[in-house]
Amino acid sequence: MVALLVLALVPMCATATESVSSPNGEVVVNVDVTGGVATYQVNFRGKAVVAPSRLGLQLLTENSRGDFNDLNARSTTNNLSLYDGFEMGAVTRSTFDETWQPVWGEEKEIRNHYNELAVTLNQTALDRNIVVRFRVYDDGLGFSYEFPQQKGLNYFVIKEELSEFAMTGDHTAWWIAGDYDTEEYEYTRSRLSEISRLFDGTISSNASQEQFSKSGVQTALQMRTDDGIYLNLHEAALVDYPCMSLNLDEATLTFRTWLTPDAQGNKGYMQTPCHSPWRTIMITDDARKVLASRLILNLNEPCKIEDTSWIKPVKYMGVWWEMIAGAGSWAYTDDLYSVKLGETDYKHVVPSGKHCANNDNVRHYIDFAAEHGFDQVLVEGWNEGWEDWFGNSKDYVFDFVTPYPDFDIAALNAYAHSKGIKLMMHHETSSSVRNYERHLEAAYQLMERYGYNSVKSGYVGNIIPRGEHHYGQWMNNHYLYCIKEAAKHHIMVNAHEAVRPTGLCRTWPNLIGNEAARGTEYEATNGSKPFHTTILPFTRLQGGPMDYTPGIFEMDMWKNNPSNPNHVNSTLARQLALYVTMYSPLQMAADEIENYEPHMDAFQFIKDVAVDWDDSRYLEAEPGRYIVVARKAKGTNNWFVGCTASEHGHTSTIKLNFLDPGKKYVATVYADAKGAHYKDNPQAYVISKREVNSKSSLKLTAAPGGGYAISIFENTPARHR
Amino acid sequence: MVALLVLALVPMCATATESVSSPNGEVVVNVDVTGGVATYQVNFRGKAVVAPSRLGLQLLTENSRGDFNDLNARSTTNNLSLYDGFEMGAVTRSTFDETWQPVWGEEKEIRNHYNELAVTLNQTALDRNIVVRFRVYDDGLGFSYEFPQQKGLNYFVIKEELSEFAMTGDHTAWWIAGDYDTEEYEYTRSRLSEISRLFDGTISSNASQEQFSKSGVQTALQMRTDDGIYLNLHEAALVDYPCMSLNLDEATLTFRTWLTPDAQGNKGYMQTPCHSPWRTIMITDDARKVLASRLILNLNEPCKIEDTSWIKPVKYMGVWWEMIAGAGSWAYTDDLYSVKLGETDYKHVVPSGKHCANNDNVRHYIDFAAEHGFDQVLVEGWNEGWEDWFGNSKDYVFDFVTPYPDFDIAALNAYAHSKGIKLMMHHETSSSVRNYERHLEAAYQLMERYGYNSVKSGYVGNIIPRGEHHYGQWMNNHYLYCIKEAAKHHIMVNAHEAVRPTGLCRTWPNLIGNEAARGTEYEATNGSKPFHTTILPFTRLQGGPMDYTPGIFEMDMWKNNPSNPNHVNSTLARQLALYVTMYSPLQMAADEIENYEPHMDAFQFIKDVAVDWDDSRYLEAEPGRYIVVARKAKGTNNWFVGCTASEHGHTSTIKLNFLDPGKKYVATVYADAKGAHYKDNPQAYVISKREVNSKSSLKLTAAPGGGYAISIFENTPARHR
Repeated sequence: MVALLVLALVPMCATATESVSSPNGEVVVNVDVTGGVATYQVNFRGKAVVAPSRLGLQLLTENSRGDFNDLNARSTTNNLSLYDGFEMGAVTRSTFDETWQPVWGEEKEIRNHYNELAVTLNQTALDRNIVVRFRVYDDGLGFSYEFPQQKGLNYFVIKEELSEFAMTGDHTAWWIAGDYDTEEYEYTRSRLSEISRLFDGTISSNASQEQFSKSGVQTALQMRTDDGIYLNLHEAALVDYPCMSLNLDEATLTFRTWLTPDAQGNKGYMQTPCHSPWRTIMITDDARKVLASRLILNLNEPCKIEDTSWIKPVKYMGVWWEMIAGAGSWAYTDDLYSVKLGETDYKHVVPSGKHCANNDNVRHYIDFAAEHGFDQVLVEGWNEGWEDWFGNSKDYVFDFVTPYPDFDIAALNAYAHSKGIKLMMHHETSSSVRNYERHLEAAYQLMERYGYNSVKSGYVGNIIPRGEHHYGQWMNNHYLYCIKEAAKHHIMVNAHEAVRPTGLCRTWPNLIGNEAARGTEYEATNGSKPFHTTILPFTRLQGGPMDYTPGIFEMDMWKNNPSNPNHVNSTLARQLALYVTMYSPLQMAADEIENYEPHMDAFQFIKDVAVDWDDSRYLEAEPGRYIVVARKAKGTNNWFVGCTASEHGHTSTIKLNFLDPGKKYVATVYADAKGAHYKDNPQAYVISKREVNSKSSLKLTAAPGGGYAISIFENTPARHR
Repeated sequence: MVALLVLALVPMCATATESVSSPNGEVVVNVDVTGGVATYQVNFRGKAVVAPSRLGLQLLTENSRGDFNDLNARSTTNNLSLYDGFEMGAVTRSTFDETWQPVWGEEKEIRNHYNELAVTLNQTALDRNIVVRFRVYDDGLGFSYEFPQQKGLNYFVIKEELSEFAMTGDHTAWWIAGDYDTEEYEYTRSRLSEISRLFDGTISSNASQEQFSKSGVQTALQMRTDDGIYLNLHEAALVDYPCMSLNLDEATLTFRTWLTPDAQGNKGYMQTPCHSPWRTIMITDDARKVLASRLILNLNEPCKIEDTSWIKPVKYMGVWWEMIAGAGSWAYTDDLYSVKLGETDYKHVVPSGKHCANNDNVRHYIDFAAEHGFDQVLVEGWNEGWEDWFGNSKDYVFDFVTPYPDFDIAALNAYAHSKGIKLMMHHETSSSVRNYERHLEAAYQLMERYGYNSVKSGYVGNIIPRGEHHYGQWMNNHYLYCIKEAAKHHIMVNAHEAVRPTGLCRTWPNLIGNEAARGTEYEATNGSKPFHTTILPFTRLQGGPMDYTPGIFEMDMWKNNPSNPNHVNSTLARQLALYVTMYSPLQMAADEIENYEPHMDAFQFIKDVAVDWDDSRYLEAEPGRYIVVARKAKGTNNWFVGCTASEHGHTSTIKLNFLDPGKKYVATVYADAKGAHYKDNPQAYVISKREVNSKSSLKLTAAPGGGYAISIFENTPARHR
């Protein structure tokens, strides 16, 4: 690590400007204070990519030290501006260069190299100050507000953060609608100026949703300028603060932060010393660099878990897809008007016969998973309460410890363990969050008792406490609380419907997955656009891995459930590719066993593919069109390549120059067959094997909505396959 | 127990009427369904005391079985009425007569004797029904809505309960303003028709408060008709439902229920089978019978704690009044802008020197309490976080386990135990309720570890989750959760600022106290009206005991703290009487030791007085004027008498005919001296001793704002005093 500190006291004057550039000098941030207003502006290779953009926050209330009036009763206004009256104060500069090793990840080492500029903004009239800290990387920047502890700024409530991101043109964007409660929308590609016109058409129904503006979008927001610059706006290290969306002023093409409110419409409750999350602007001239960027992770704090030996990537199957398909059910019975936990006696109700989490079915999955080298089997619907879990604003909805009569938790775990498999716990909270926290310790203790080490949690429906939102400070605090409590029990967490990740998995690597976007489950109901998986790595995955649940082999859902008319918008080969293109240390083979059995040759790729990596190379990428990535499996010399393509398909010529020179490898290519098409011929694939080396190149074609997957094993004599 | 069941199926017709009368026939309830509308009406001795009053509820949403749309998204309206379209269905009658033994109480046995009428109200068009159950006692009645589990009524959200209480005249009422967050108002005596005119003048500032209507009042509401009938409206068994206030329609003199809303303005979230609390109407011809009534307790469920041997009444002192007086502080230091628990290092801050919960001071209280036969010593301000606990909407405000550096929790408990004293725990939550629940188990475990068996909890300030109210369903659920969790640890709870009690102490007798009204602490700040303690037993105490903290001997607060100009509006003799007139199994001697030492002759009464009783006799009572009560100490033949009087004073001639005939007793009378006055001569008292028997009568005079206390010990040879 190299650190250089320069402290300069700038004299108070009407205008003051400071600049900081990236290590390679290509990204330059200019910070200006004029007439009491602070702005920043960003150049890339000498050209503006962010026009002058305002900095600051508007407060709702503010309590200085010793002022013990109730916050909500305060009505003074003069001290509620943290957006004007500024003079530039102390300026601090430093350089940081460190290489760190993630517990799991896309590569074994990550370089964190930036130049930093911290500008103190004094509100002299109020005898208080804040600091804006910029960290400038070769691939972008982050800035964060810091609120030092001081007499004049102690407790305050944020009415709105006013950070601006002024775009310099009507860029192309891949966006989903801003919402306080769901990220499960389809992506739309449009010009910025088209967002509000298209907005309503992008909204699909969700169990919990609330939009705030027809020009509101979520982060990570991926854009491309007409001259080929890729801009990405997001946030990093979202802790004890509301999640940020962006609201576009179409007249000026300026985004402004829009924080998620609480039940009273307020945003953040702050106590100094504290700081905002990092607001990030990624700037590259190549889409592949967006995918290779570790900006978000780097802006998060280092790992806070001392012993991480218990944190392990997981490849799993699950008792799940048959319920998503509608053929089976989470609930045990159809016989109840409703359930009262502890009162409803399931032993005396009539089973529906559709309950999937039964002993026989779970054993069936354990057997198959064990035979094919999986780590875990997820079982949803194992616990009492599913009959009325959703849509009833029910407080005591689950206790997280009581299995249905046909799920023998002790016997099934013992059986799984005897075969080298762990069961994966499932905690659907139904967003009844107080109830979950009340039962959390007992639930985690149960997991320890039976040998679970990972939990998929869920937050379907409106939040209880009612009026709170999935992405507000209250819930963000909750999600992190669960992660920390889980860590005490050596439990890994995969939280669904939680806030979109912002790189916290660096600090808390037991957060091994999130949903926070439209996952594969939508393919079983409304479907997703064929280009969906060509966008997610630019957007949703920037913050951390997604439990996307790929591996669907049967695209016609009516074959799983005659009353389900839906179709999965992907070829089978692309489903294999997703294990590589959708980076995650947690990967599911989501389809039903019976759908794998006719295609065990293709299934071999799922068996082979790694879930942790020493290296990753982004070979080709364009948002909304295609992604081709090669990854080197952890601790081996083997590589896996994946390509996902939009409805336009994609033809690649990829060079295998990432292979060790002079060594021989065997590549097995799982490709769309000729005539394959996501819509009407998705299962047409061909598997071919060839010897390759670092000088090889492969020309491969992905069908519309298709893709390909390649395993490349070092051809050592010991290897038999 | 005698139970008689009659089931009658009433044919559907436009008008149907059913009646039920009290065991003695004096109270008669008539239930009527006409034109789809259900009403009830109450007569006392043949005269209407409640005019025809509507029954029913208005729903916001309703989910029938299998309808899994989100509750909040529903907009159907036809099924949102539970207030019309009724036809009278099945009618059930029964009689109940049982005598039960409270774990602690005003008497050793309580008779629960009522006639019951349950009327099914069918909404035939919607294929659903509810039941209204009336229990009619000789001293009043309760009615409750029952919502049976059924296909047509499963989950629903209450927009408002529409129960009416139509008064038959412009009665005199003793009322406090309806509020979602505080009961700590002064009482006002007025005609019903004057309430809205006087309303604003009754509002004093509180750390959390929100009124809903200028004609809104709280329960228990005590009224007197012009022909001398005492009516009291309250509720019993408030569980999983919002607390009820009453809103008066002044034109018709009709009260209607007004439930406490949640953060979204909704009232109750219900799942069938369920029921409302009991709405109670006490009706007597004598104010003493109001105080002797056990209507509220009887309408609660029997004790749910199997082994109650660990629940014991408590007489205690506390490190408290010097802080209330403003002479000392809960906080350890004045040296911090704010506190971050786990980060702030108190060992390196400058102590203010005013921190009362220090080892020396606590030992001083332990010594005195032990010497004088007390059970416990409360210590407030023992734990980290008091520097910024209030008014900052601070989430992580206390951890409930970390003592300040000058409070040696292990040593002090050991010292106390060596002297036969227990320390009383203090859990101020600052209304940060999620934070409290997260730490609750560890906090209770700490108590067990050090030998605490009781906790005073507090909910000062606005509730977090923000937008929730102290008396909403969410918080009522929380209070009961704490009581149940505490019971698992054999911990008794005394919750301050919690919802007004409704007799739940019968079911959960480890709820040994509540505040829920303007307690003695107000005497140290704004004062309370001299008549205050002549009203509380008619109102606040109807629901359960109050931790009123009597025993103030020094009325001039500036003698405790030169900068405190306030005065306690009571004579010293009245302070003694409150141990008898304000029934509670938890009684504090609240003043500072130094204020007791000059008056140890009077202090003898506090030492002698019991905190649990075999019998109670209300000798004289008139709300707002005087209360005289005699109680027989548990397991003895000794009696204690107390009288509290308003600013008008009171002269009694009391007959001691409750004493055992033929036995001799020694009565020690602690009376206001001649010329005593709450305002300018409060410490003038005389103590006199005389021999008495069951034929004795005593003429005693209470000064303005005064009272008297009498101990009556059986004069056995063994007794030395």
